[in-house]
Amino acid sequence: MSYDIRDITLAERGRQRIAWAARHMPVLNQIKDEFAREQPFQGRRIAASLHITTETAALLSALHAGGAEVALCASNPLSTQDDVCAALAESGIAVYACYSEDLTTYQQHIEQTLALDPHLVMDDGADLIVEVHNRSQGSSVVAGIEETTSGVTRARALAEQKLLRFPVIAVNDTPTKRFFDNRYGTGQNTIDGILRATNIFLAGATFVVAGYGWCGRGIALRARGMGARVIVCEINATRALEAVMEGFQVLSMTEAAPLGDIFITATGMSGVISEQHLRQMKDGAILGNSGHFDIEVDVAALRKLATSTTEIRDHLSEFRLSNGRTLYLLAEGRLVGQVAAEASPAAVMDLSFADQALSTRYLLQPDLQLPPAVYDVPPDIDERVAQLKLQALGIKLDTLNESQLAYQHAWQLGTVAAS
Amino acid sequence: MSYDIRDITLAERGRQRIAWAARHMPVLNQIKDEFAREQPFQGRRIAASLHITTETAALLSALHAGGAEVALCASNPLSTQDDVCAALAESGIAVYACYSEDLTTYQQHIEQTLALDPHLVMDDGADLIVEVHNRSQGSSVVAGIEETTSGVTRARALAEQKLLRFPVIAVNDTPTKRFFDNRYGTGQNTIDGILRATNIFLAGATFVVAGYGWCGRGIALRARGMGARVIVCEINATRALEAVMEGFQVLSMTEAAPLGDIFITATGMSGVISEQHLRQMKDGAILGNSGHFDIEVDVAALRKLATSTTEIRDHLSEFRLSNGRTLYLLAEGRLVGQVAAEASPAAVMDLSFADQALSTRYLLQPDLQLPPAVYDVPPDIDERVAQLKLQALGIKLDTLNESQLAYQHAWQLGTVAAS
Amino acid sequence: MSYDIRDITLAERGRQRIAWAARHMPVLNQIKDEFAREQPFQGRRIAASLHITTETAALLSALHAGGAEVALCASNPLSTQDDVCAALAESGIAVYACYSEDLTTYQQHIEQTLALDPHLVMDDGADLIVEVHNRSQGSSVVAGIEETTSGVTRARALAEQKLLRFPVIAVNDTPTKRFFDNRYGTGQNTIDGILRATNIFLAGATFVVAGYGWCGRGIALRARGMGARVIVCEINATRALEAVMEGFQVLSMTEAAPLGDIFITATGMSGVISEQHLRQMKDGAILGNSGHFDIEVDVAALRKLATSTTEIRDHLSEFRLSNGRTLYLLAEGRLVGQVAAEASPAAVMDLSFADQALSTRYLLQPDLQLPPAVYDVPPDIDERVAQLKLQALGIKLDTLNESQLAYQHAWQLGTVAAS
Amino acid sequence: MSYDIRDITLAERGRQRIAWAARHMPVLNQIKDEFAREQPFQGRRIAASLHITTETAALLSALHAGGAEVALCASNPLSTQDDVCAALAESGIAVYACYSEDLTTYQQHIEQTLALDPHLVMDDGADLIVEVHNRSQGSSVVAGIEETTSGVTRARALAEQKLLRFPVIAVNDTPTKRFFDNRYGTGQNTIDGILRATNIFLAGATFVVAGYGWCGRGIALRARGMGARVIVCEINATRALEAVMEGFQVLSMTEAAPLGDIFITATGMSGVISEQHLRQMKDGAILGNSGHFDIEVDVAALRKLATSTTEIRDHLSEFRLSNGRTLYLLAEGRLVGQVAAEASPAAVMDLSFADQALSTRYLLQPDLQLPPAVYDVPPDIDERVAQLKLQALGIKLDTLNESQLAYQHAWQLGTVAAS
Repeated sequence: MSYDIRDITLAERGRQRIAWAARHMPVLNQIKDEFAREQPFQGRRIAASLHITTETAALLSALHAGGAEVALCASNPLSTQDDVCAALAESGIAVYACYSEDLTTYQQHIEQTLALDPHLVMDDGADLIVEVHNRSQGSSVVAGIEETTSGVTRARALAEQKLLRFPVIAVNDTPTKRFFDNRYGTGQNTIDGILRATNIFLAGATFVVAGYGWCGRGIALRARGMGARVIVCEINATRALEAVMEGFQVLSMTEAAPLGDIFITATGMSGVISEQHLRQMKDGAILGNSGHFDIEVDVAALRKLATSTTEIRDHLSEFRLSNGRTLYLLAEGRLVGQVAAEASPAAVMDLSFADQALSTRYLLQPDLQLPPAVYDVPPDIDERVAQLKLQALGIKLDTLNESQLAYQHAWQLGTVAAS
Repeated sequence: MSYDIRDITLAERGRQRIAWAARHMPVLNQIKDEFAREQPFQGRRIAASLHITTETAALLSALHAGGAEVALCASNPLSTQDDVCAALAESGIAVYACYSEDLTTYQQHIEQTLALDPHLVMDDGADLIVEVHNRSQGSSVVAGIEETTSGVTRARALAEQKLLRFPVIAVNDTPTKRFFDNRYGTGQNTIDGILRATNIFLAGATFVVAGYGWCGRGIALRARGMGARVIVCEINATRALEAVMEGFQVLSMTEAAPLGDIFITATGMSGVISEQHLRQMKDGAILGNSGHFDIEVDVAALRKLATSTTEIRDHLSEFRLSNGRTLYLLAEGRLVGQVAAEASPAAVMDLSFADQALSTRYLLQPDLQLPPAVYDVPPDIDERVAQLKLQALGIKLDTLNESQLAYQHAWQLGTVAAS
Repeated sequence: MSYDIRDITLAERGRQRIAWAARHMPVLNQIKDEFAREQPFQGRRIAASLHITTETAALLSALHAGGAEVALCASNPLSTQDDVCAALAESGIAVYACYSEDLTTYQQHIEQTLALDPHLVMDDGADLIVEVHNRSQGSSVVAGIEETTSGVTRARALAEQKLLRFPVIAVNDTPTKRFFDNRYGTGQNTIDGILRATNIFLAGATFVVAGYGWCGRGIALRARGMGARVIVCEINATRALEAVMEGFQVLSMTEAAPLGDIFITATGMSGVISEQHLRQMKDGAILGNSGHFDIEVDVAALRKLATSTTEIRDHLSEFRLSNGRTLYLLAEGRLVGQVAAEASPAAVMDLSFADQALSTRYLLQPDLQLPPAVYDVPPDIDERVAQLKLQALGIKLDTLNESQLAYQHAWQLGTVAAS
Repeated sequence: MSYDIRDITLAERGRQRIAWAARHMPVLNQIKDEFAREQPFQGRRIAASLHITTETAALLSALHAGGAEVALCASNPLSTQDDVCAALAESGIAVYACYSEDLTTYQQHIEQTLALDPHLVMDDGADLIVEVHNRSQGSSVVAGIEETTSGVTRARALAEQKLLRFPVIAVNDTPTKRFFDNRYGTGQNTIDGILRATNIFLAGATFVVAGYGWCGRGIALRARGMGARVIVCEINATRALEAVMEGFQVLSMTEAAPLGDIFITATGMSGVISEQHLRQMKDGAILGNSGHFDIEVDVAALRKLATSTTEIRDHLSEFRLSNGRTLYLLAEGRLVGQVAAEASPAAVMDLSFADQALSTRYLLQPDLQLPPAVYDVPPDIDERVAQLKLQALGIKLDTLNESQLAYQHAWQLGTVAAS
């Protein structure tokens, strides 16, 4: 089996860390056991572009256990953990990724991964899906799965422009993914990434969150939980009102720019922090991004404004501006929790990757006929994942008795009849 | 004009309190001005069954200003404010309601209200909608609006059983209603109702919330905000997981029953606190409900278990049980925030009632042809309400520039192409 | 026995409500049983000036059970509950107080209370202590107890000016009082008072707290817990820093005045909200006070600025200013939680009043010889109260074993020796 | 100048990181400038035993700038940052420390540091103070400063046993230290250390905090802020009650041991998590310590119970127990925030180290005559530090006007006279 990784001797370290993650993924472990018994992927080839973390290793291991041939590349040049690559390569997965690879290598690795001629592409950011669409017709791909907001946006754009060639499940949008991984997972990993890169004091800091979607909500919640004073910027009125009523200050970025000590974007949109905003910021302001692509902070504008740039700590670059102020950029503007920390923890990726694993099985059923479109995770998969997680946590739900089940349909019972 | 209220001399007091509420309802005020100019309801008759609060008065006043003839009855025998009834009656609205009316009178008042022969029924709990359906065909009703979860459930049951005779808009389900009024409104009014009825100390109390829908979320959030230790009971796995990850303890009601100091139901379901649970509870436990109907705590079972019952404070009844323990019931098991406090505050009802007002205009358009079914609030109404509220709060949103608008469709831009 | 109260027929209602409070005061109940057995107050006379609430009734009942002759007047003209007065009068306590009495009557009631010729004066605000000092020498008073910050300040001023005639215990300052009653008790009762008086929506409101002592901390904490955005004003640098690091915005009152929707003072200082601040405030701002005296908001300045004044709801007055804006004052500027709600709940007053009860016994020991000065509660009383409360809550503490007790003195054990 | 460090070539990296920390220490910077001008330490020798972090470097640099000759050793074998040592050595400070040195080397380094024959010893854990006392009389030491709870306990034990030879200032106990560094600093660095060592998911985890002093409060606060469900264990009744009323569950460690997912000690006491507790714990439980010495978790007992021990990630050791369960230990039981993360952030160490710097100047005044005892930081130093920090943050305090200053002494002004 072929692979292209940093250093195969890191495999043992990788296996130890993967085992630690797997301890906290009981749902995925149960699905892996099921896959190992049932071999649903015999003869199937899966290509994946993912953040190569210990949790990702656990997912691929489950697919592999189910009989799939698997190839893997990065979904971001800075989120690859080289020891994980080594462990995966030794376990028989064709890994093409190194931490901090340049974009040319990144692209080559995509191509090497697609050389598997996969039946299914599994994406975090849609780089594989798009690469397949950039090529002339003729691949074996029958389905795709997309894990993150930015990638779903790309898949939907393909679909709107009638270009999408195969069905794609938007795992990102399913409740057991976005309520948990996006909110609490990204919330935690963003704080973690900021602290590892800066050791900055959050208590009393003015923390600006751009975007109050599920990721932004989680970041705002955790920043407040660490003692920061949080300001939210939004483009959507209902979300902005929710932020207000959670007690956050809501301002436009133009208003917030001169106030913030720390800025984190989580929007999926380009140019959220623009040159104009950069010019307004306080001396010492720290900028970072938790969205998939490095386009939310206008890094090019920052470079243009700077008279010097220095990496002063791992994942922390200092930009001295010609206006006399100094700004600091986290993780080159790439997702700070994936790059400067270790991405979302295993216990929450357990949900997202269980959704991925079960959606993969669903999409690779021999007799499935789905027209090209973006689909939700089938609700029974979502529900099963939630149920399995609760069982693993030892939590009991209430259940409706017969009288209660009947009550749901008893429209006659109102103020007078029911009392 | 006819009415049946407690005491018309309370009108001045009612007007003062209504004016205070109206101060905090800028969106509804703006809609009222629009209605006054445009007279969209000329010749239209509207019957409403609502909690008769100062905020409700502001809504009906807007409809009345728009040319409607309006009749009003209660949506709960204990949530009527007699001074508001007096002020409304003096302003030309046909009010049939008194605080603490018995169920026979409650039913008579529904009938007097429907005697208006309305074109539209506006409900909070669906008592009017159901009463129309209990009658043989032949009313003038062309549409309904329903405000609360329990009422929407009844309307949907009618629709599922193919019995629904006219379109009903589920205002309850629209984002600008349920995210705000259900969550933050009910959250606050439930705490308020508990405090007015008991003056109990919440810091350190074990507070059990049954149901983690929007209302339950708000109650749990505010109970924690007042220092309580919160336990959540749920029947839905995803909601239960959300509660876990917010840091709440999640237990079945059977597990929670012996632990709680205070129990609040917000489920829309009957018998959530059953005889079995009541038998397990600690001496001194306090029980209340924030759902629409008084069926969530099994009050009949509580009465059966009790050897004596005494009202020891307003809206607080003491039940001495044969097992030697004493339990306390809030507001006779009716929605504690509406009965023991004053329902959701004006600033949040501003959203819900703006939705109601604009949905009423939408449904009474002369040329609207909607088949009988339960409908969402039209998204442009929801969006407009959110926008108006933000404007009233003086909050500015970010907006997308042309380059950003284009980015939304640029599926080609990924890790390599966008960097 | 003599008394002067509103209406003796309210006694039954008072007894019911007192019984409800007493349910939540297990520590005081246990002390009362002890007093009843030991009769420490035989032949002793105690005069008290307190907020006449159900919890106060429980305290006086404990002293009375211990053999004391007790007379009682109000500590604030608006915090008297007439039904409690009736119940106390029927139980043999000489009560001189009515809700909303004028200041002349208030003063007469102080004098009638002191006509008991007490051995001990128990104060909340120091009106009895000061009245004794306003008179020429010759009273039987051997000791005083003071419950609140403002009263302790007065007692300390007397001591500093060498005028204090007898020892005074500052119950206010003892940990089991100020950490709990001042912080969590006042925190809750302030929110409660605001809600009862206004039904205002706290989520998203800008809430200004003047003073970040224990009361102010509690108010800020609970206001945030209800969803408000909190601004803190302080005069002390360390307290201000604490507020910053809790994530609150810290501003001077001049900066905060134009921003707040709600202002609450908790400083013990006069003129905290001055005419200049009133002129800057937004239309619709609500002002209230949680400090003992009605001097923190400059009500005289507010009246001077106003062209009209109307009470539009109970405990809510509207002031139309000549600058076109309208301001709203809670509870006439008197402590809003005591006047518009029911003061701190029983479960927390259990601590404060247990401190009072045991400090009273301590001060009335026949052989105690304390020079005139302001004293702390003896630490063993404070510790016993905390221990009893935990026992009543069923909470177990860890205890140190012998090896751990020895470790406390083993200074030799450091990095090397202990490892 | 002599030193003993890992690698002098790390100096440039150290300087960059120190510069980053110094950016966030405006108070210390201002004091450093003052020291540089005034040279208060000319001819004085200072020996320090501290966590060798970038913030510590800023402190020593200020003393050095003031004319002192400085020698430095570690205060913990695992909290030394080798690049900081290199930068300090190059700047002329005699550093004797390497990350992960063994205890023999640790002791040698203490001795090399004391070979400076210092006038003042500056300690974090009291290893220098104790070493001086372990020797026969005759040193030049005239004063000591102690930074942490565990060290203050040792100094107080020396004083109680009448053995203390010179005055020691307990910087740990001063408000600007313990309210901020202990609470918010340790709160943040503990979370940070846990995340770096484990990448564990905190949302929904059961997090047990042993000790509810200032450090424990901060840890509990931040653990909750990250979504954990927090259980507190305490030996002091008042602190336990505070934890209850903050909404935490309070249990004995025996009750908590089988419930926790994560346990953190912050007590200053030995054997807080004992063999008996370890036997009760769930499979997978994670144990760590934030107290100064590695005696709070009984690591010896853990080793005894284990059949195998493996370091599976940096600062995370796996112990397989003979009862079939696996437990995980953070940072070998040493303070997790110092070892696995980077200790408290610069912005909060700015306060603690400003206290240290000014206390050092105070203690080295030529004419100071203080008997041997443990002293508080002089209040004017504490107040100045708080004031400087607020100025640096650009925060304005309110100030009392003349009328308000007079009010503080006006005991005559009560309910009647003041109204």
